[in-house]
Amino acid sequence: MTRHSVTTVRGGVTAPRGFAAAGIHCGIKKKRLPDLALLVSERNGPVAGVFTTNRIAAAPVQLDRLYLKRKTARAVIVNSGNANAVTGKQGYADAMEMSSLAAKRLKIAPHTVFVGSTGVIGQPLPMARIRQGLPALMKQVRRTGGHDAARAILTTDLKTKEAAYSARIGGRTITVGGMAKGSGMIHPDMATMLAYVTTDAAIEQPALQQALASAVAKSFNCISVDGDSSTNDTVLCLANGLAGNPTLRKGSAALATFQHLLDQVCLDLAMKVIRDGEGVTKVVKLAVTGARTQADARQIAKTIGTSLLVKTALFGEDANWGRIVAALGRAGVAVDPGRIGLAFDGVPIMKAGRQLGAQAQRKIDRIVKNREFTITIAIGQGAASASLWITDLSYEYVKINASYRT
Amino acid sequence: MTRHSVTTVRGGVTAPRGFAAAGIHCGIKKKRLPDLALLVSERNGPVAGVFTTNRIAAAPVQLDRLYLKRKTARAVIVNSGNANAVTGKQGYADAMEMSSLAAKRLKIAPHTVFVGSTGVIGQPLPMARIRQGLPALMKQVRRTGGHDAARAILTTDLKTKEAAYSARIGGRTITVGGMAKGSGMIHPDMATMLAYVTTDAAIEQPALQQALASAVAKSFNCISVDGDSSTNDTVLCLANGLAGNPTLRKGSAALATFQHLLDQVCLDLAMKVIRDGEGVTKVVKLAVTGARTQADARQIAKTIGTSLLVKTALFGEDANWGRIVAALGRAGVAVDPGRIGLAFDGVPIMKAGRQLGAQAQRKIDRIVKNREFTITIAIGQGAASASLWITDLSYEYVKINASYRT
Repeated sequence: MTRHSVTTVRGGVTAPRGFAAAGIHCGIKKKRLPDLALLVSERNGPVAGVFTTNRIAAAPVQLDRLYLKRKTARAVIVNSGNANAVTGKQGYADAMEMSSLAAKRLKIAPHTVFVGSTGVIGQPLPMARIRQGLPALMKQVRRTGGHDAARAILTTDLKTKEAAYSARIGGRTITVGGMAKGSGMIHPDMATMLAYVTTDAAIEQPALQQALASAVAKSFNCISVDGDSSTNDTVLCLANGLAGNPTLRKGSAALATFQHLLDQVCLDLAMKVIRDGEGVTKVVKLAVTGARTQADARQIAKTIGTSLLVKTALFGEDANWGRIVAALGRAGVAVDPGRIGLAFDGVPIMKAGRQLGAQAQRKIDRIVKNREFTITIAIGQGAASASLWITDLSYEYVKINASYRT
Repeated sequence: MTRHSVTTVRGGVTAPRGFAAAGIHCGIKKKRLPDLALLVSERNGPVAGVFTTNRIAAAPVQLDRLYLKRKTARAVIVNSGNANAVTGKQGYADAMEMSSLAAKRLKIAPHTVFVGSTGVIGQPLPMARIRQGLPALMKQVRRTGGHDAARAILTTDLKTKEAAYSARIGGRTITVGGMAKGSGMIHPDMATMLAYVTTDAAIEQPALQQALASAVAKSFNCISVDGDSSTNDTVLCLANGLAGNPTLRKGSAALATFQHLLDQVCLDLAMKVIRDGEGVTKVVKLAVTGARTQADARQIAKTIGTSLLVKTALFGEDANWGRIVAALGRAGVAVDPGRIGLAFDGVPIMKAGRQLGAQAQRKIDRIVKNREFTITIAIGQGAASASLWITDLSYEYVKINASYRT
């Protein structure tokens, strides 16, 4: 296995060369919180995108999908406080206008300005406020503006989510940076989750798209807060080539290092998203091993990970492994109860379907008091595995989501 | 359509002729709450059963499935406070012993004494307490003991769940009575849900089994509290023939009236289960119409009905229909956003994918303040439909389930 020498660097989307950003309050959110962000590169470059699998995709997702066919991006404009989802033709026109207005001011082609929205579903986008806010947003754009942009894409998030890593590739230092917002509706195949990743690597678009899809599968698609996947999920990656490395292509040896870099940024952002999940007090890794197929392993992890009884037990710091087994039993996978093994942070509580004694229980009773731990579910049928990071279900989650609009 | 003249009668499992019951505290539950129930018929009769689809069936479910092959029952012994699930060979031996001990005292064959358990998973059944409690339980058995038995099968339930209905069939008055426990883990294909139904009808076992399966499909399998289906779900129906009607067979004209009677008892119990669901403040009927297939309709209802965002919005009395549309979009059914219709208690808020105005919103804002209402989701693709009764997700639900074992 190759060691990739990857270094954490400060900042987020503006850490790579040639990217600038801004974030302001334009009036979509009621409180004076930032709600409009712009990310812009010095020059055009290849763009990759992964979007929601929700059949009812929001207007900006529909537009971005169309733009992605042209494979080139220069900028992204994102608003928070309104998802511009389930808004019909007007919503699509509004997303187009957001893109065009920004393109006009930046003097670039509209199809190179991608659009993102997150917030309440089913409300028309307050375009007047976005129009009014644009001049101030443009004025704020700067090389150090990544953090302002990261703040302006948040909804119920408590913290900004930024990450950046560097590595030497082809004799040059390549940086990948990113920002994300998450909070609720986080589930495999994404969720109200926006992530924007930038890099100064020179890379061909097909290689970038493949690398992004792979990184997303290992990061954003392995976290679950509440099982809801949204109409707006988007991960975009913009590359501008300013690092001056020999252009990365599919098959390039150096692509593995770039992949590692991108994986790191996506995983770092994904963990920040889940740790800042709505009302989260626990982050638990479910590691399903010994399944017949990866699909089985994923199905089991998903069923356990979305069980309200499992999630409330985690919140209550109750090592109620019986609920895990009960959820496993209804996953729709033919499991043999006599082969099942369960362990908390490596401490077994069940082996070959038999529970271990009171001493094991006391040990796991202590483990569940930690903020983060791993539960391993061994099926004993094969060699396939899957991991899913999940959260507990707390009073706070209910409170946040019962009163979001009021 | 034939009108069936069905009358509600008082009582539950002991309302039909020839059934007696009892419920006592034997010490499985910490507080002095009843935790051991017995239901017994004057004579043997056909029995029907429907069990959990969970792959990890509890010991009593395994035993009952075996007994059901012999198609005859006389009695049921049920404990609450411990599910005897995920308890391995010892658990199975314990379930057999529960049955045998009761059979010995009743001087009947063990395979005619069915067993039920509900409560914590993964703990050995405290057999000593059950053994000690049996004499007192036997002494309490009486014709009016239905309510005591109904109390003794509860776990976190707040209320007992009983129902009984009568109708004239073949010149005789036939009564069907029942008791149930529910609360958490309620989901289609049942959940920690036990229901015991009795009837004095003379009926052949195959007809009884068919009728019970049909009644369960329309009642217990159309309610969802938390999406978890348990290791212990059981619905049993015992018939003793004491009404003296001409024996009902598959194809009997009078079977339709009996079906209606059984449907009424099961639906009544199912609604009592969901209304008493853990921390429930809202009971909402999701009516999915215009789907291509019933499987599609059920899948959509299930996806919306288990969405934490939908459930918390119901708790918050927030008519956030956008979350319903978002959940619909991730149901895995190819829907056309331009055809979707949504209505609350018949008041439309979306037609052909377009949301209606502020006046419609104000109307539905009022409707969601009711304790019970219907949300209709029209897909506009076909003629198939499905209904699901769901509940909200409240602080109380989290509290109950975070602290169940402590």
